[in-house]
Amino acid sequence: MPMPSPLDEARYELALANRIIAHEGVLDGFGHVSVRHPTDPGRYLLARSRSPELIEPADIYEFTLDSEPVAAKGVTLYGERVIHGCIYQARPDVNAVCHHHSPSILPFCITGVELVPVFHLGAVLGTAAPFWDSRDDFGDTNMLVIKPEEGRSLAKALGSHWMVLMRRHGATLVGTTLRELVFRTVYSHANAEIQLRSMLIGKIGPLSRGEAELTGPYQLTPRPMARAWEYWTTRLKKNGELPRARRTGGRPATLRTAKSRSGQGA
Amino acid sequence: MPMPSPLDEARYELALANRIIAHEGVLDGFGHVSVRHPTDPGRYLLARSRSPELIEPADIYEFTLDSEPVAAKGVTLYGERVIHGCIYQARPDVNAVCHHHSPSILPFCITGVELVPVFHLGAVLGTAAPFWDSRDDFGDTNMLVIKPEEGRSLAKALGSHWMVLMRRHGATLVGTTLRELVFRTVYSHANAEIQLRSMLIGKIGPLSRGEAELTGPYQLTPRPMARAWEYWTTRLKKNGELPRARRTGGRPATLRTAKSRSGQGA
Amino acid sequence: MPMPSPLDEARYELALANRIIAHEGVLDGFGHVSVRHPTDPGRYLLARSRSPELIEPADIYEFTLDSEPVAAKGVTLYGERVIHGCIYQARPDVNAVCHHHSPSILPFCITGVELVPVFHLGAVLGTAAPFWDSRDDFGDTNMLVIKPEEGRSLAKALGSHWMVLMRRHGATLVGTTLRELVFRTVYSHANAEIQLRSMLIGKIGPLSRGEAELTGPYQLTPRPMARAWEYWTTRLKKNGELPRARRTGGRPATLRTAKSRSGQGA
Amino acid sequence: MPMPSPLDEARYELALANRIIAHEGVLDGFGHVSVRHPTDPGRYLLARSRSPELIEPADIYEFTLDSEPVAAKGVTLYGERVIHGCIYQARPDVNAVCHHHSPSILPFCITGVELVPVFHLGAVLGTAAPFWDSRDDFGDTNMLVIKPEEGRSLAKALGSHWMVLMRRHGATLVGTTLRELVFRTVYSHANAEIQLRSMLIGKIGPLSRGEAELTGPYQLTPRPMARAWEYWTTRLKKNGELPRARRTGGRPATLRTAKSRSGQGA
Repeated sequence: MPMPSPLDEARYELALANRIIAHEGVLDGFGHVSVRHPTDPGRYLLARSRSPELIEPADIYEFTLDSEPVAAKGVTLYGERVIHGCIYQARPDVNAVCHHHSPSILPFCITGVELVPVFHLGAVLGTAAPFWDSRDDFGDTNMLVIKPEEGRSLAKALGSHWMVLMRRHGATLVGTTLRELVFRTVYSHANAEIQLRSMLIGKIGPLSRGEAELTGPYQLTPRPMARAWEYWTTRLKKNGELPRARRTGGRPATLRTAKSRSGQGA
Repeated sequence: MPMPSPLDEARYELALANRIIAHEGVLDGFGHVSVRHPTDPGRYLLARSRSPELIEPADIYEFTLDSEPVAAKGVTLYGERVIHGCIYQARPDVNAVCHHHSPSILPFCITGVELVPVFHLGAVLGTAAPFWDSRDDFGDTNMLVIKPEEGRSLAKALGSHWMVLMRRHGATLVGTTLRELVFRTVYSHANAEIQLRSMLIGKIGPLSRGEAELTGPYQLTPRPMARAWEYWTTRLKKNGELPRARRTGGRPATLRTAKSRSGQGA
Repeated sequence: MPMPSPLDEARYELALANRIIAHEGVLDGFGHVSVRHPTDPGRYLLARSRSPELIEPADIYEFTLDSEPVAAKGVTLYGERVIHGCIYQARPDVNAVCHHHSPSILPFCITGVELVPVFHLGAVLGTAAPFWDSRDDFGDTNMLVIKPEEGRSLAKALGSHWMVLMRRHGATLVGTTLRELVFRTVYSHANAEIQLRSMLIGKIGPLSRGEAELTGPYQLTPRPMARAWEYWTTRLKKNGELPRARRTGGRPATLRTAKSRSGQGA
Repeated sequence: MPMPSPLDEARYELALANRIIAHEGVLDGFGHVSVRHPTDPGRYLLARSRSPELIEPADIYEFTLDSEPVAAKGVTLYGERVIHGCIYQARPDVNAVCHHHSPSILPFCITGVELVPVFHLGAVLGTAAPFWDSRDDFGDTNMLVIKPEEGRSLAKALGSHWMVLMRRHGATLVGTTLRELVFRTVYSHANAEIQLRSMLIGKIGPLSRGEAELTGPYQLTPRPMARAWEYWTTRLKKNGELPRARRTGGRPATLRTAKSRSGQGA
């Protein structure tokens, strides 16, 4: 059997990442995860409009950084693709993006309370997570990030951070690699839940800036990352939730050369 | 094999809707879901007295809008049927109704705190959810909505809204379609949980009326609805919880022409 | 195959009740459930020292109302048996008893906040649940109810109520039947969780005494009870957690006529 | 088949203990559990860097009390081994150690609120749990306990207690036996969750010192311990999560005589 191509590998890993983040309770029926194309930095990979925990490699398509599908005729696409494209344009250092509506993160998005690292693993969110409010630039909207200018506004609010909190909406996180993104998404969600619970019983004493700057990057070194990855993938496997084998990663020829219909799915 | 009839289809879909809402944590042993008859607007479909997550197509019977069973001899029925019948009478635009006691919604019913959309998906509950208190019209009762006048009082409180909060009891939601009702029920429950959690850490900043009016209807368009429906049904399927195949949807002939015994089950 | 005897039936039902209450999240590794002997009101049935969710009919033994085992040589028994025996002595109307440490009930036992019915199903706890504090009569102890005088003190605090809250320890509930006890145990636990959650966001408006007196008994009528019982047993069955078939209900002859060793297990 | 050696038994039990504590919700992808060598008090047993719920007997290695592996060439090890070694050096009475980041314990580590026994089973944590803050002795660090002086500082803070709370990090618990440690870890976690929930609705009334001193040791006597152990192991077994059979406890010969590479995994 021939070796899978880098693209096949990337599509399998992206399906796996979607399923891990959903299985760990961060993503539900909505939200999405993307990765920059493994060989063409001017493109990214993202699933068609489908819930993260159901995504197979065959559901994953290529997009330009303007978030136009390269080939996806008759396929329904996520409406908020520009979140991904605009961030890849603004952040050459970023190679993976996740947008979600975690019930642990939303209370911060709804109250404007600052999310801060409260335990060592939570420092992977960075030293701070800025807020973005669609109301500031665009007034009353349907709140989805669909227009290029909306995506650029969000990317601008993210700036050089790893995570941006979207008022009354959710969060968007970025990583230099897909696995780093998964780790950051899962543990920033855990940090939010623990910060919320801590605030219920007393005054929180968060990490110092020095501690956050020392331990955040440490958690993203190969050993803790490998340990967490084995843990998450084994949990999926025990549940029979792994994506289909890499070899099924190819899309039907009928779709490969087709043109796209832009989707509006949330 | 012959095509299933519209009625068989409706009964299968209603069994599925019951199971989805239960599986997503909104319904437990009690509560019920109904749909208007697919070909006779003067009737609705509702299960016999059985817990939502156990309902099969064969458990579903026809009722007049006075909530009298068309044919259900010797079958125990829900005591609160008038919730459904009185709403179908008052709201020609409504084709599906759900009554539940969600642990996320009840804190609002018990404190009288207003439930408001706090994130985009929560806007499917509408711009507001009025309260109804059985005490106002009827004083001390067993709190169940069993008498026609109780059902009419509740329907009046619902008015033109999509959701009514019942003090010390639960909630009743309506939809123009069954799938819209399921989406509204699941995400109003999610909104309540997130609003409650947000109130624990700060002052909530809900959606503006303009945002709610723009994003609520948007979430109920075909693409997000289809995506959520695939997600919920796949989760049921993975758990082996789908209803039995449509062909088992028929009721035993012995019951088909029989008369009913009015049930008082909660 | 011969019909199972009333005693075999009672032991199967008691194993089932233990498993239901555990599966619904009220009982964990500790706590216990008993039922009065089906033909001899001067005896009750209780498992040997084993976690509720593991109990089989063969684990269930007979005890006198002084909580002495009729025949259980070399078997480790629960240390807190007197909770059951002393209540059966004090309350001829009571035929089933459950003692547990539910995480939803304990916050009331630890703060002394009054548990009140906040929704219709919660009214099965009664109009009030008194407190008992082992410290009042006995000062500092190991907190377990092991001595007859401790059991009598608890039974006295229960009085004519259906539930007593034990400070820093847990709760004890009673029922006129085993199924009524299971319903009361599951829904008083649900009421506690919902009351706790309601107190986090506002001032609770509980049921009026009139409402509680009307709806509490209503919930315990055959139809809601049958509906809940089918729900709970089906959930166990789907999980492969039903007790072994009635015919395995008999204890090995080697134990049947043996004498007991009083156990001290918590 | 030959009897398994005491070492094989110890390695199987340690794998089982890791899985129980993870399955009961205390440990997640990180954290670790060790036991003193069954025949050489100058050594302890600890897994290679792997998530607790995945650990097999073959993953468990021997370490000196200086936390140097006896033989583990090319194997990635936990970075925080000194937590274990330094405590075994300081506490001859201690034969098992667990370090975790429980979401129920962390709120106390983050706010500095004192953890106290609030119900009888919670008394297994002891009459008090001191705090340790890496900042006090070492200022800003990556917060992991990796250097011998960091381990000694933590062991000093633990003193003669059974549990130490690590600010912004987690907790470390000790036991005279592995099973005692598991019981203490699970029920101190339960006590923390119940204390947190109790603080949300009122002023907590904890155990008196006398009660804690009487009931804590009582919970650790053979009967409650055996009952809990059967419960936890049966739950693992029902989930197909037991470690592989003892006979697979041996490590591949290729690793047995090799030298170690010190690991830095969190």
